Amino acid sequence: MEGIHLLGEWYDCAADTPEMTHSASLRALCVRLAQASSMTVVGDSFHQFEPQGVTGTVLLAESHLAIHTWPEHGFVTIDVYVCNYTTDNTAKAERLFRAMQDAMRPQRMKFQAIHRGGGDA
Amino acid sequence: MEGIHLLGEWYDCAADTPEMTHSASLRALCVRLAQASSMTVVGDSFHQFEPQGVTGTVLLAESHLAIHTWPEHGFVTIDVYVCNYTTDNTAKAERLFRAMQDAMRPQRMKFQAIHRGGGDA
Repeated sequence: MEGIHLLGEWYDCAADTPEMTHSASLRALCVRLAQASSMTVVGDSFHQFEPQGVTGTVLLAESHLAIHTWPEHGFVTIDVYVCNYTTDNTAKAERLFRAMQDAMRPQRMKFQAIHRGGGDA
Repeated sequence: MEGIHLLGEWYDCAADTPEMTHSASLRALCVRLAQASSMTVVGDSFHQFEPQGVTGTVLLAESHLAIHTWPEHGFVTIDVYVCNYTTDNTAKAERLFRAMQDAMRPQRMKFQAIHRGGGDA
């Protein structure tokens, strides 16, 4: 049950965009880009923090996307995790991750790709 | 904006429990244990796969929990990510992770703890 988990910390993102500040806009972006990356969306949940900031997840048949924004710091963390159960979804995950990055436009970033699973399961 | 992200791959879990097979049971467990770990739940989404398996996330004021079950393999992946913005939530994250592990009872496991963020944000 191998999979790939992409983790990003994005600094100096454009802080005043609707996607950074409003849950409905960020949700629409995440769902649209997941579908554009040939992922199958099976659920989602987004929460608006006051005075600002959004936390959200999109459930995928392939696993999940999770994102947290701190507009006051121009900071975003993002996870795209896909399991490669019946097919290798790595390319889809990388496509979604890059599309989200292009949308949020960080000036600096940290990135990790973690291989998960394997073994007997 | 530092944080800690705990990733688990749990093998040989009890495969026929309601929490492994049914989204409503797994959701109830995750929400209950998050609250018992002094986390603040702000949303959730769980999806039931057919013929089996569950994918779900719980949104936390502290960040998120994500879990995926494959009952046919006794396999679970779990993420508990907390940001340590105003307070250090590491102990809460570790408590939630351990409580979930005690509930799902894996016989073998892989574990990683990843420090996220830092820098200027």
